[in-house]
Amino acid sequence: MRDVCIIGIGQTPIGELWELGLRQLAFKALEAAVQDAGIERPEALFVGNMMAARLSDQAQLGALIADFAGWRGIEAVTVEAACASGGAAFQAAVRAVASGMVETAAVVGIEKMTEATGEAVTSGLATAADADYEQIHGLTFVALNALLMQRYMYEYHVPHEAFAGFPINAHRNAVNNPNAMYQREITPEIYARAPIIAPPINLYDSSPICDGAAAAILCPLEMARGLPGVKPIQVLASATATDCLNLDDRRNVISLDAARLSAEKAYQQAGIVPSDVDVFEVHDAFSIIAALSLEAAGFAEPGKATRLAEEGEIAITGRIPISTMGGLKARGHPVGATGVYEIVDVVTQLRGEAGANQVPDACIGMTQNIGGTGSTVVTHILGCI
Amino acid sequence: MRDVCIIGIGQTPIGELWELGLRQLAFKALEAAVQDAGIERPEALFVGNMMAARLSDQAQLGALIADFAGWRGIEAVTVEAACASGGAAFQAAVRAVASGMVETAAVVGIEKMTEATGEAVTSGLATAADADYEQIHGLTFVALNALLMQRYMYEYHVPHEAFAGFPINAHRNAVNNPNAMYQREITPEIYARAPIIAPPINLYDSSPICDGAAAAILCPLEMARGLPGVKPIQVLASATATDCLNLDDRRNVISLDAARLSAEKAYQQAGIVPSDVDVFEVHDAFSIIAALSLEAAGFAEPGKATRLAEEGEIAITGRIPISTMGGLKARGHPVGATGVYEIVDVVTQLRGEAGANQVPDACIGMTQNIGGTGSTVVTHILGCI
Repeated sequence: MRDVCIIGIGQTPIGELWELGLRQLAFKALEAAVQDAGIERPEALFVGNMMAARLSDQAQLGALIADFAGWRGIEAVTVEAACASGGAAFQAAVRAVASGMVETAAVVGIEKMTEATGEAVTSGLATAADADYEQIHGLTFVALNALLMQRYMYEYHVPHEAFAGFPINAHRNAVNNPNAMYQREITPEIYARAPIIAPPINLYDSSPICDGAAAAILCPLEMARGLPGVKPIQVLASATATDCLNLDDRRNVISLDAARLSAEKAYQQAGIVPSDVDVFEVHDAFSIIAALSLEAAGFAEPGKATRLAEEGEIAITGRIPISTMGGLKARGHPVGATGVYEIVDVVTQLRGEAGANQVPDACIGMTQNIGGTGSTVVTHILGCI
Repeated sequence: MRDVCIIGIGQTPIGELWELGLRQLAFKALEAAVQDAGIERPEALFVGNMMAARLSDQAQLGALIADFAGWRGIEAVTVEAACASGGAAFQAAVRAVASGMVETAAVVGIEKMTEATGEAVTSGLATAADADYEQIHGLTFVALNALLMQRYMYEYHVPHEAFAGFPINAHRNAVNNPNAMYQREITPEIYARAPIIAPPINLYDSSPICDGAAAAILCPLEMARGLPGVKPIQVLASATATDCLNLDDRRNVISLDAARLSAEKAYQQAGIVPSDVDVFEVHDAFSIIAALSLEAAGFAEPGKATRLAEEGEIAITGRIPISTMGGLKARGHPVGATGVYEIVDVVTQLRGEAGANQVPDACIGMTQNIGGTGSTVVTHILGCI
C-alpha cells in the first residue's frame, strides 16, 4: 500500500448558482484544483453526488464531467452514500492511488439543489432515509433529525438554547470565508427568535439548500515530494462504517455507532488519539448531528457536547476547533459536495492558508462526513508531512 | 499492490421479481456468494446500482443492504456509472483489496425495474444520456441505439438480418441457464418477423426490462490459496475508460473509443492479446452494442463483427464465445447488476461449472460492461490460477 497525498484543492462559492449547469459547476472546482496541483490531466476522476439523477435527470456524471474538463478517455465513476457521497468518493480516490493502479486521481463533490422545486428537494433528501420504514410514514429528513434532537434533549436534560453555540460558531467563522453562503454572524438572541422548522429544530439548527462543488487532487507521497511549489498534505487514515438507515432499529438512537466505529478505525490507522486532532471538520448538517458526531468521535462524553460549544472549545482558538470555514451550517451543505469541502477546509488549515480563521500550528486535521441520520460515516485524518 | 481473487459468486434468477424488495433481492445474491466463498462477513460492500433513487425512492443502498445482510457496521457505498455500475462497483472492490486496506470485499449489482411504470423506466434509462444535449430532444435510450445501428448499417453496408446471430446465440445459450429470463431459442424467422421498437431495432435487438442481483466475494490471492473447497479465480486486469455522453460529439460515432481504450488498458495489465481470451461476456444490451464492443475489443475488424455471428465464431465452440449464459439479451439486463452478472458468468466458465454451456478448457475470460452509448466502459480480465 502506497502513502497518498493531497496536492491540490479547489472549490466554488456556495449559493444559488443558477448560471452554472452540473458540468460547469464541477469543472470550476476541478480547474482550480489541477491548477493548484500543477498538473494537467489526472488519470482517474471520482465524483461524489447524491441527487443529480433525480433533480437534473442526469446519471453517469463521471464520464460527463471528465469529458467537459477536457479529460476525455480517463477512468471516471460516481460514488454515492447520501450526504456522505463526497467523503466516499474521496476514499475511492485514496484507494485508487494507494493500490498502485492510478498515479494521479481527481475527486469532485457536486450538488445542484436550488433549481428544483422545494418538494423535489425534500423528497430527494428523504431518499437517504429508509423508503419502507421511514419515508412511507411521511417522515422528511428534517423531521427525522428533529426526532433525534428531541430525544437527546429529553435523555440528557439539555435545553434547546444549549445548541446555540454550534450555529453561532459556524456563522462567525463564515464571515472570513469568501466561498461561504452566509458570511454574517448571528447572536444568541437571533437564534432564540428563529422560526421553528420541525420542533425543536429551528432555522439555525439546519443547514441550507444550496449548490456547490469542491475538488481535490491526489497522488503517491513519493511523487508529491518532488512537485515544485506544492505543500503536500498526507492522508493518514480513511475509514467508513455503517449503521441501519431506520432510526427505530438503532442500538441507541442518540449514539451514532457508525460515527464512533469510523472514528475508531481512523484513529487506529493514523496511530493517534482524539486529543492529537488540531482541527475537526464536523458534519453539522443539523446542530444535533454536530453534537452527536463530537461525542462519537471521542471529543465529548455522551450528553456533554453542547458544553464544548458553551465553553468556547469549538472556536478557532479552542481545544477542538470545528466548522472553521463556516461548516455545513454557514459555508453551506450541497450534499454530495460536502465531504470534499470538509477535506478542502482541513487542507487549507494544515497548509496554514486559512487567514483570519487559521488554527494555530494545525498539523493534524480530521473530517467526518455523515450520510442519512448516521447510516454511512466516512472519517478522514490528514496530516502535514 | 496485492493480487486479488474471486472466491465466491451468487445470483438471483432474472425476471419480474415483485415478491422481493431491493434489500431482499440484494441479500439473496450476497447470501449465495458468501456461502460459496465460505466466509461469514466481508469487511466492505460495494453496491452497483443505477436507478433505485428514482424508481424506488431509495439512496444509500450500501448501508441499507449491509445492515439487512447482517453485517451492520461494515464499510459500504454505492458506485454508479449508468449501465456500467456493476462493473464499476466490482472495480472499486478490486481496488479496496489490492490497496491492502480491505481483506474481504463483497460486491453486489442490483436493479429493480419492473415495479415502476414504463414511463418511469424509460426516463430513468435516459439519464444515462446527456440531459442537455440528448434528453432535451426527446431521445430515449433505445432511440439513441437505433441511431447507432442505422449509421453502422449505412456505413458498412450491413443488412439488418446480419445482426440476427447475436440474439439467436444468446437465446440458445440461455436455454441451459436456470437463472435466465428467457430460456428459449429463437430462429432467424422469428427474428425477421419481430416487431420494430425503434427502427431498425426490433424486439430481439434489445435487452429486456427486468429485476435481478448478482454478487461476488474478493480477497487477496495469498488468502484465497489457503481456503478449503474454493477454486479462486484471479483478477488479471481491471480498467475503466470514458467518452462523451452525447453521440454528436464522438470522434467516430460507430467506433466505441472508450471500449477500445478500456480493452487496451486491460490487455496491457494482463499481458495478453485478444486471441488469448477464451470467453468474452459482451455487453449485448442491443445487438449493435455487441457488434461495436467486439470490434473495439479487437475481436473483429470495423464493420465485420456480424460475420463472427454468421460464421458461428461467437458460439460456445467458436473462436470467441460470447453471451455464454444468455447475455444481456436472454439472461437479462437489470442494468446496475449486469456488470456483476458478467463476472459471475465468466467465473462459472473458468471454474468449469457451466454445464452444457461450458467453453472447453476456458482459462482466460473477459467482461466488458458499458454505460450509456459507450460513455463509460469497464473491462475485466479473469484467469485460472
